[in-house]
Amino acid sequence: MMNVSEYLQEFDMFFDPQSIAIYGASNNIQRFGSFHLLNLITQGYEGRIYPIHPAQDTILTVKAYKKIGDVPEKVDLVVMVLPTRLVLEKLEECGQAGVRGIIIVTAGFRELGDLDTELEMTRIGEKYGMKIIGPNCIGIVVPKVRINLSPMAVEPIAGDVSIISQSGSYACHILFILREKIGLGISKIISVGNEAHLDIVDFLEYLGEDPETKAIGIYVEGIKRGKRFAEVARRVSLKKPIIAIKIGQTTAGMRGAASHTGSIANDERIINGVFKQSGIIQAETSIDMLNALHAFSCLPLPTGPKIGVVTLGGGPGTKIADLLEQQGVQVPLLSKNLQEELMKILPFTASPRNPVDSTFDTQFDNIYKKVPKMLLQSGEVDGIIVYGIWSTDSLKYWMNSAPENLKRHIHNNEMMDLFSRLLEGGAKSLKRLSKKFNKPIIGSTPFSRTIHPLIDYCQDQGLPIFQFEESVRPLVMMVQYAEWLRRQK
Amino acid sequence: MMNVSEYLQEFDMFFDPQSIAIYGASNNIQRFGSFHLLNLITQGYEGRIYPIHPAQDTILTVKAYKKIGDVPEKVDLVVMVLPTRLVLEKLEECGQAGVRGIIIVTAGFRELGDLDTELEMTRIGEKYGMKIIGPNCIGIVVPKVRINLSPMAVEPIAGDVSIISQSGSYACHILFILREKIGLGISKIISVGNEAHLDIVDFLEYLGEDPETKAIGIYVEGIKRGKRFAEVARRVSLKKPIIAIKIGQTTAGMRGAASHTGSIANDERIINGVFKQSGIIQAETSIDMLNALHAFSCLPLPTGPKIGVVTLGGGPGTKIADLLEQQGVQVPLLSKNLQEELMKILPFTASPRNPVDSTFDTQFDNIYKKVPKMLLQSGEVDGIIVYGIWSTDSLKYWMNSAPENLKRHIHNNEMMDLFSRLLEGGAKSLKRLSKKFNKPIIGSTPFSRTIHPLIDYCQDQGLPIFQFEESVRPLVMMVQYAEWLRRQK
Repeated sequence: MMNVSEYLQEFDMFFDPQSIAIYGASNNIQRFGSFHLLNLITQGYEGRIYPIHPAQDTILTVKAYKKIGDVPEKVDLVVMVLPTRLVLEKLEECGQAGVRGIIIVTAGFRELGDLDTELEMTRIGEKYGMKIIGPNCIGIVVPKVRINLSPMAVEPIAGDVSIISQSGSYACHILFILREKIGLGISKIISVGNEAHLDIVDFLEYLGEDPETKAIGIYVEGIKRGKRFAEVARRVSLKKPIIAIKIGQTTAGMRGAASHTGSIANDERIINGVFKQSGIIQAETSIDMLNALHAFSCLPLPTGPKIGVVTLGGGPGTKIADLLEQQGVQVPLLSKNLQEELMKILPFTASPRNPVDSTFDTQFDNIYKKVPKMLLQSGEVDGIIVYGIWSTDSLKYWMNSAPENLKRHIHNNEMMDLFSRLLEGGAKSLKRLSKKFNKPIIGSTPFSRTIHPLIDYCQDQGLPIFQFEESVRPLVMMVQYAEWLRRQK
Repeated sequence: MMNVSEYLQEFDMFFDPQSIAIYGASNNIQRFGSFHLLNLITQGYEGRIYPIHPAQDTILTVKAYKKIGDVPEKVDLVVMVLPTRLVLEKLEECGQAGVRGIIIVTAGFRELGDLDTELEMTRIGEKYGMKIIGPNCIGIVVPKVRINLSPMAVEPIAGDVSIISQSGSYACHILFILREKIGLGISKIISVGNEAHLDIVDFLEYLGEDPETKAIGIYVEGIKRGKRFAEVARRVSLKKPIIAIKIGQTTAGMRGAASHTGSIANDERIINGVFKQSGIIQAETSIDMLNALHAFSCLPLPTGPKIGVVTLGGGPGTKIADLLEQQGVQVPLLSKNLQEELMKILPFTASPRNPVDSTFDTQFDNIYKKVPKMLLQSGEVDGIIVYGIWSTDSLKYWMNSAPENLKRHIHNNEMMDLFSRLLEGGAKSLKRLSKKFNKPIIGSTPFSRTIHPLIDYCQDQGLPIFQFEESVRPLVMMVQYAEWLRRQK
């Protein structure tokens, strides 16, 4: 029997290949296969790259080979972006050349009713001991080893969240949101496509063991090995959270799902039952799922359902409290004693009951340090949302747009520095408190990542920050998962 | 009886004042009142500005006056950011000096149990014929006349959506989201605060008549004049859409709402009933409301509940279809005939049933022009969501990050230009189709505004674009409002 490390090595040709060959890249950069090659080159993949092309000597500056058999080594991984009719023939050649892993991006099989060719792929794969991902997928993304085998021109951040997707579009389009909006680092993304050979269950099992994956997201259209899926998912859920988004839940949705990966979108109630039993937490939208993965990957779990809301403004804090309670999480009235303690440091206009509303207190130390600390210390809450993570760019705007004489008046770098230190210090302090008390703290803000560097700073430091009410679902999902875990003991 | 234009002029001191005086601005720019003044100056308000300060001769480069009575004209609008105890005295002085409108930003009245002082404010206001907004509000925003009387350092876009908010934080914090994420232009934002004198009903009535307001958003914590609110809201809804977000729906939420504007958050069921009867469409989150306002402000209403989903990728299109149907909108199977026509232009891997999935067809003309046109022409759908509005920055990334020799290979500005024209042309074409067929078209994308200029371009052109599943709620709300309108006939 294999031990864990041997088992993980079985997938090395995908997640740490020493060499990659690509069929379908050309010197025309508008071709899909060229996109995959461009990403390997521009993102600095350090292994050996072999374009396979029947006519050209170099493809996009890289030496090309006429056939896989001409390549001067046994290739770990082959990516095929070929016309549908050529796939079986090239697969056979790959087998003969000793290739270990294959990603078939090419579409036009089971989703169009052709199951036979897929069975033949599997047969060829098994004959030569090759593992196959696809067909009809987009590839894989492994930022740590600088592999972005997707057609998307974006450099993903390396991190410890992994995603398996039966939808190729989601698998790669989310790369933009992850980098530009959420700041979420990725360990592995696997687009499984039609699952002719390897399927979602194989990779769920793998990621369950993978020490570089802390939280798993799955885009599910249909599950072929239902019983095995449930077993594996339950075992994995005991170790790390799985967040799922189900695609194809309605008549129209099932029409979409069936047509595009040839999935039989399973009965909604059965899938829901399996998810619930296995500890899989369901998300309604992509952004909710990705936000939740961010929170799960860098925060401790809440030890109970009681949440404190600390806010720089009444309305947004109140709405966050509303949504938390509507989604089954408690926002308890704080004890008289704690309220009195809070009012010793808050302005007289503040409300200390929970939400704790500081009514735009410019003493940021209160909402970034003192209030969260008092709440966590009291034991009256199991986690916190802080609304009002502020951006220093405000002052910059005034400095840049003021008339000259006013600019001289307000241009005071010392104050700007102080303000920056205060806010960055606040972010660090929230992170430190979360660690010290082993309870989750999530930030909420009206600002956007990339536009406002402080948001990037927080997200990169492992303090998840979301816009307004987007902060609610991740914490609700954390409470749900923690409760499921407790029930298993 | 006043005609409409006379009625609108009654509010000119707020929305088009010739002069503004500010109490509470100082040369210390960390003060709240200074923020309001900084915004007036930096954003180019063209009227006369009078800081009132007991000691200084100039405030932030502007000539200051010791008392309102010293100002050499009758001032249209006064903003007070004063200590609580000074408000009544200064209000009286304003009345004597012939001021027409007052915004009291100062807090510490009804929300802390002091109703008497607010009654006294109203009495003074009525004695001198002054209109009063607040107290405990943040001010107003009227981009057209370059008034941003809020403490937020951001320049709002001028447009035709207006928002009334009982939450001061929402009223101003959303300015960042509106500019940076949604690209939504504002006609007026009014933070009504504790509503001692003017309340949400007054401004709803005003905005109903205002020719510069096409859609109205309201943040509601509680309604004091329930019967009148229902009457006015119903009358306004017949002319333009009102989207509401209710704050303080749960025990915790009501705790928050009651403490911060002194509102009695009304019974949830009563409010829901009033909203439903009046044609007010409810949003669950701020971002949903603001997205919906964007869609309402620049698109024709759907004439029925049948939606076509056109998508560049199976998963996201399917999920959009799921959410539409779950929220009560139809995504009908297209007729055999229309499907056949669609397959004449789509790749063989595509699915024409609805969602119409072009499976990453790089012939962007199909999903941006031909497919939407065929769908609208057929009469089989009443509106469309197009997923896959693409950013040209993809190619830019490769160009910028490629090694030198590869850069020479791919650096082909002609292709880049072609690609840009294709995408910008697509955005224009979708907008044109929406106008021509008088049906809404909403875009969906994985990209973010500000980071990807094409998204700004679309939003600024009046083609609302939202991220992934965020595109669903605005269209659902449009269908709901259109149905309500039809039932009134």
